[in-house]
Amino acid sequence: MSVPFVPPAPFVSIAVPDPFTVMNAVGLLAFAVAGSLKASDAGLDAFGVAVLGVLTALGGGTVRDVLVNRPPASLTTTWDMSVALVGVALAVILSRRASKHARVLDSRVFLVSDATGLAAFAATGALVGTRAGLAPYGVVVLAAVTAVGGGSLADVLLGRVPVVLREDFYATPALVGGGVFLLARFAGAPSGIPSGACAGAVFAVRMLALRYAWRLPEV
Amino acid sequence: MSVPFVPPAPFVSIAVPDPFTVMNAVGLLAFAVAGSLKASDAGLDAFGVAVLGVLTALGGGTVRDVLVNRPPASLTTTWDMSVALVGVALAVILSRRASKHARVLDSRVFLVSDATGLAAFAATGALVGTRAGLAPYGVVVLAAVTAVGGGSLADVLLGRVPVVLREDFYATPALVGGGVFLLARFAGAPSGIPSGACAGAVFAVRMLALRYAWRLPEV
Amino acid sequence: MSVPFVPPAPFVSIAVPDPFTVMNAVGLLAFAVAGSLKASDAGLDAFGVAVLGVLTALGGGTVRDVLVNRPPASLTTTWDMSVALVGVALAVILSRRASKHARVLDSRVFLVSDATGLAAFAATGALVGTRAGLAPYGVVVLAAVTAVGGGSLADVLLGRVPVVLREDFYATPALVGGGVFLLARFAGAPSGIPSGACAGAVFAVRMLALRYAWRLPEV
Repeated sequence: MSVPFVPPAPFVSIAVPDPFTVMNAVGLLAFAVAGSLKASDAGLDAFGVAVLGVLTALGGGTVRDVLVNRPPASLTTTWDMSVALVGVALAVILSRRASKHARVLDSRVFLVSDATGLAAFAATGALVGTRAGLAPYGVVVLAAVTAVGGGSLADVLLGRVPVVLREDFYATPALVGGGVFLLARFAGAPSGIPSGACAGAVFAVRMLALRYAWRLPEV
Repeated sequence: MSVPFVPPAPFVSIAVPDPFTVMNAVGLLAFAVAGSLKASDAGLDAFGVAVLGVLTALGGGTVRDVLVNRPPASLTTTWDMSVALVGVALAVILSRRASKHARVLDSRVFLVSDATGLAAFAATGALVGTRAGLAPYGVVVLAAVTAVGGGSLADVLLGRVPVVLREDFYATPALVGGGVFLLARFAGAPSGIPSGACAGAVFAVRMLALRYAWRLPEV
Repeated sequence: MSVPFVPPAPFVSIAVPDPFTVMNAVGLLAFAVAGSLKASDAGLDAFGVAVLGVLTALGGGTVRDVLVNRPPASLTTTWDMSVALVGVALAVILSRRASKHARVLDSRVFLVSDATGLAAFAATGALVGTRAGLAPYGVVVLAAVTAVGGGSLADVLLGRVPVVLREDFYATPALVGGGVFLLARFAGAPSGIPSGACAGAVFAVRMLALRYAWRLPEV
């Protein structure tokens, strides 16, 4: 009598990480960097930079969890805060490269980390929305709200009109990503593919829009 | 043996619409128009105008639903977003009339649509508060928070001190409307009358306050 | 047969007040005063002063309750609003003392009432977090969010960068207080001691930081 092969648990858990865990960690790191650079550019001191970095990282996910009535991970786990603090530390190192530019907010380091956070958090919003049983429409809206939430909170706290109102292609890539997520799911893609495709689409559309200064057609 | 008369379903559902559905649709339309005009006045481009119009329309109701622990309609239905987008389109047409004025925010189109949104959303807040089993006090507070929420969010996103802090008769009409709603309910008024009386009171008090530049007495 | 002595109920309820009730009332009063003075300093009229005083008092607690999925006391009781309104009235009397200073926000009346609100609300956050079953980390974060919430909301509504981003020792005392609360609880201190020690620590650290212009070391 043969025993069926069972892969050892640690191997499996490394080989097939939960898509939410991966996207959440990437988004937290990236938005902590982007928020810290934004705060630094606004002339805040080191503590203010750390607080704004953390709030940018945790903001979108907290709004996402409150909207679907889920205990916010920022309160119930130490993981989110830990990753956000690593991101703040990373920003201190990266800020030397960023500060070669006249304006930090035009530097490649800021724009890439902000686009990465936008992409990864759109994927977490789509995943949480799907698990909460939202209809396709709700999944796309939650992806967009989660993606733009952290950066918008940071802008409001700094007394600025949030980027989501100033740039056509900030919410738009997140909406496109939500649509790509749903298409991949409806096509029966295995776990991890829909969120990866979502994040890839958001990142690509955002970076192309920045590179070629895309604007939506005026009505 | 006679069969009792049963009116055809469509007739009934048109003749006796749910008060919440009516007030919600009116409020969404009106605040989408008001928010779009506010964004246009602040110099945002067409996409920013649409985003701020939608956020103004959906903001108060989302806060209302989160406070009473109800899944926000802005996520669980496509109806709210659809009506908000129709309101944004309407604003594009109405803005030609509004722009005849030196300042859009002093135009009749803006002031009437803003007062209409305030009135209709106060009624939705009172209805939701009553259904959630809040005490009379909570119903009045929820009416006021729902009514002023969308416009305050729009002002904060544009970096302005919200109108609720600058004008005595912005929260006051909503509080009066909440009281009128309760009085009508306690008097045993049939479904639809309390919310209609609430909205009527809010609209009348707001427009009279604007017309005669009412101020609360200083203490 | 002897009847065991049972103290009369009113006596007991006065002698052993619920720590939350005490801290909540102190915090509401103190933040209503601080928020009113802030609004007055910003040139708002009497109604705007009252609205901002109430929002400063109720803001942190409402965010706290929404985060742990608890019906917000600001909606379900009249107590919170009543205490906040008493605080606004108190501010009108105290503002004469405050206005002897060139800037109200540098006056002792403002700084002491703001530090008192910070201390008392940190204690309510720690108490609610503990009762909601959060892990130690979540208790400390909820204490800090509750403490800084009201003042930050007031600053954002007035279009200012919130004090939590500008001063190192605004969130820091609240985090210290959350830690003191946990230590006292782990040490087995009887009811009321952990929250009292928490509030005392927050108040002391905040006032010392103001007195000696403490800054965190730069990294």
